[in-house]
Amino acid sequence: MILAIDIGGTTTKLGLVENGQVVVRDRINTNGHADEHAFADAIAEHARKLITATGTKLTSIGIGAPNANQHTGIIEMAPNLPWKHDVPLANMMATRMGATAVLGNDANAAALGEWRYGAGKGYNDLMVVTLGTGVGGGFIVNGKLVLGSAGNAGELGHTTLVMDGRPCTCGRAGCLETYVSIRGIRQTYLDLGGDSDIIRTEGVKPIADAALAGDRAAQFTFQWTADWLAVGLANAVAITGPGRIVLFGGIVRSGRLLMDPLQARFKKVLLNIYQGRVDIVSSGLPEDDSALLGAAALGGTGDH
Amino acid sequence: MILAIDIGGTTTKLGLVENGQVVVRDRINTNGHADEHAFADAIAEHARKLITATGTKLTSIGIGAPNANQHTGIIEMAPNLPWKHDVPLANMMATRMGATAVLGNDANAAALGEWRYGAGKGYNDLMVVTLGTGVGGGFIVNGKLVLGSAGNAGELGHTTLVMDGRPCTCGRAGCLETYVSIRGIRQTYLDLGGDSDIIRTEGVKPIADAALAGDRAAQFTFQWTADWLAVGLANAVAITGPGRIVLFGGIVRSGRLLMDPLQARFKKVLLNIYQGRVDIVSSGLPEDDSALLGAAALGGTGDH
Repeated sequence: MILAIDIGGTTTKLGLVENGQVVVRDRINTNGHADEHAFADAIAEHARKLITATGTKLTSIGIGAPNANQHTGIIEMAPNLPWKHDVPLANMMATRMGATAVLGNDANAAALGEWRYGAGKGYNDLMVVTLGTGVGGGFIVNGKLVLGSAGNAGELGHTTLVMDGRPCTCGRAGCLETYVSIRGIRQTYLDLGGDSDIIRTEGVKPIADAALAGDRAAQFTFQWTADWLAVGLANAVAITGPGRIVLFGGIVRSGRLLMDPLQARFKKVLLNIYQGRVDIVSSGLPEDDSALLGAAALGGTGDH
Repeated sequence: MILAIDIGGTTTKLGLVENGQVVVRDRINTNGHADEHAFADAIAEHARKLITATGTKLTSIGIGAPNANQHTGIIEMAPNLPWKHDVPLANMMATRMGATAVLGNDANAAALGEWRYGAGKGYNDLMVVTLGTGVGGGFIVNGKLVLGSAGNAGELGHTTLVMDGRPCTCGRAGCLETYVSIRGIRQTYLDLGGDSDIIRTEGVKPIADAALAGDRAAQFTFQWTADWLAVGLANAVAITGPGRIVLFGGIVRSGRLLMDPLQARFKKVLLNIYQGRVDIVSSGLPEDDSALLGAAALGGTGDH
């Protein structure tokens, strides 16, 4: 049984995973703990309850988190987590639980999850893109997760789409993330003269609803987003040559509004030698469990 | 002894390589043969003379060529070679020479050459960029060459730098290659109001000479080229996270005119997590032999 932990800016999920199924699950707040040690204690306490309840033995631990360096097992100065300094969470959890722990970037965990349990099964070269508050990427190349020198490769969201473009939270400008993340899409809608009343509601759904109701600015927003995303994906394909791209996250679930123009545009901007050799599909994992399955896939690699 | 073959649009070089040294070499015209079989016969004939002259035994064959699919050993419809149809050159040479043959993309061969014999030795994650008539890339990830689904990954030159930018020979627009290849640099010089007399001479050298002599348009040309190349390199780093970038080709030899602004600009546009984790260096291989050493590295992989 693998203990899977997914650390988000607000909520930390945990669960026990066996054969690609989340058997039991729990969640705690990421914030409000005295320090990172108290946070790790709280995870351990909740995990022990799950283990006792199921009466099984723990084989390993997988942890997905933002800004995680998989080589070192350290969360490095994560801007969206309560601790701005380095946190060696892999070791901290391994000590507390008495099992080996692998910590990895959350987008890389998602890639491993899709590869092991989801729509990426069987692909030796795979690219997984998470579209949400941020835009993350995880790559499988030659049948192995790409980690790179910082233990945190696949930062597709921080490839430059437009030189001197929109300002990004990373301190640079024109990153793909500033155009195709939730915030980026909302910005585009405003830039296109969209109705500011509509985006009082959070997320992309109000814009999707408006598009379906005939709002032209909303319709163009999805087309522009598809154009930008297609270029970002095609650029990554030119470099690593995946046989499949799996898209993941809430925006993808706005369905054909994004996916139809994306498929058409991607075919247009894709380099000749990759025509017919790569497709784009949506995640094959159940939405609620996908992050935990990704973390479990990380724990199951023994690659730390 | 490895038989190394480097197929270019004009000239095909061949040589015998042992321990990272080209022991003997020869060259033939790529054009002017009745068909691809006559071309392969000509290479084989010249190769046999080299083998007889050195009195050694052939262990394997490595062939670098444009548009080569390393999975299949086929040159696929290469626009710059005399044969526009698919040519299964790996098999054709293996049959003629009685040894296993690996055919690979020329930029990937360059990457393997730098990795095995040059400035990339010892790097588990490496990126090699060839700057010339075209712009090619080859990537080592997790200690293995990246081939991808088309057997020809690493097409950095055909990542989009500017959407709807300069037209590219690949049929698309705004590719990095249209800005930082020899042709791209010459175009930039003209766009900046450079002296059209100066670029009557081929290549980048006349612009470099003009820059050193105080020509402002020529000086800006190198700065703009550095800016564009820095963004293209930083984008690829965000995806695969190499510990080193090796630059390769004639333009790099224009020396500090390009390299100084490139190093400065790269540091500026590089994503935070990679700061201090990746450097840019020039090729560590002798100019005349680098393509042959790359092809030899391909032949030495046994990876076909």
